[in-house]
Amino acid sequence: MMQAGIETTTDFERSLLADIPLTRAMQLSLRTYRDDELVLAAPLAPNVNDKGCAFGGSLGSLLTLAGWGLIVLQLSALGRDCDVYVQDSSVRYLAPVWTDFVARARLAEGETWAAFADTLAGRGRARLRVACAVTLADGSDACSLNARFVAIEKK
Amino acid sequence: MMQAGIETTTDFERSLLADIPLTRAMQLSLRTYRDDELVLAAPLAPNVNDKGCAFGGSLGSLLTLAGWGLIVLQLSALGRDCDVYVQDSSVRYLAPVWTDFVARARLAEGETWAAFADTLAGRGRARLRVACAVTLADGSDACSLNARFVAIEKK
Repeated sequence: MMQAGIETTTDFERSLLADIPLTRAMQLSLRTYRDDELVLAAPLAPNVNDKGCAFGGSLGSLLTLAGWGLIVLQLSALGRDCDVYVQDSSVRYLAPVWTDFVARARLAEGETWAAFADTLAGRGRARLRVACAVTLADGSDACSLNARFVAIEKK
Repeated sequence: MMQAGIETTTDFERSLLADIPLTRAMQLSLRTYRDDELVLAAPLAPNVNDKGCAFGGSLGSLLTLAGWGLIVLQLSALGRDCDVYVQDSSVRYLAPVWTDFVARARLAEGETWAAFADTLAGRGRARLRVACAVTLADGSDACSLNARFVAIEKK
């Protein structure tokens, strides 16, 4: 249901907040989408843990949503009507996050949109790996996620 | 701050809901804690995704919290005052979850509380792997998480 009618990133943000209640609790927003990179943002306050830094579940959720959204937006641009599911992910929590944070998603090394679109056109489904990170002010990663998604064309 | 004063699982549930706002949004509850297994529960409605099944971020969060809580409760029983952090995790999303769900956490294969407590006593910090899963009604895993945590004794 998500892809239908996504004309702009504003539509995407609106449907995300409408369809997934936890994104509202996280106060998620879409920061930028350009050059094959999607950046989602969340404030610290609703995403804090018992130690006063960002809750691992919020970091993992924002990273997963950034990767998922990157694929959803690309499929929308390609005019394909698909459901997109996460299949597996590995997350590394490298440093605590004490501020509002953003999650950046890009294609993982070795992946291309062309190969993904070809497979999808031929088989009606295709898999793709994305690399996502929450970065600290000094440019180092605080939390990284590598995840595999599958897009399945709707009947 | 979490461990101080945890006398019962009710105290643990209360501090979790008080200290981590996202657990309130998820409507998390503690189901059981016995025989070295912690079971946390969440209803589907506040944790739904765009497809009407459980949001991957909610599944991952509940699984991570179950693993983390298993260690926090054990440290409390041992009388150790530690902060517990997740270091890395791998998650597999195997089947969609269309109902309210529970996440079960146990020690991962090869881990023992005795070795963990010895290392903690000797070095002031210790690592531990946990294995967590959300299981379907037929007993198969819908989502599994293997994660490594570190406990660090407070100064």
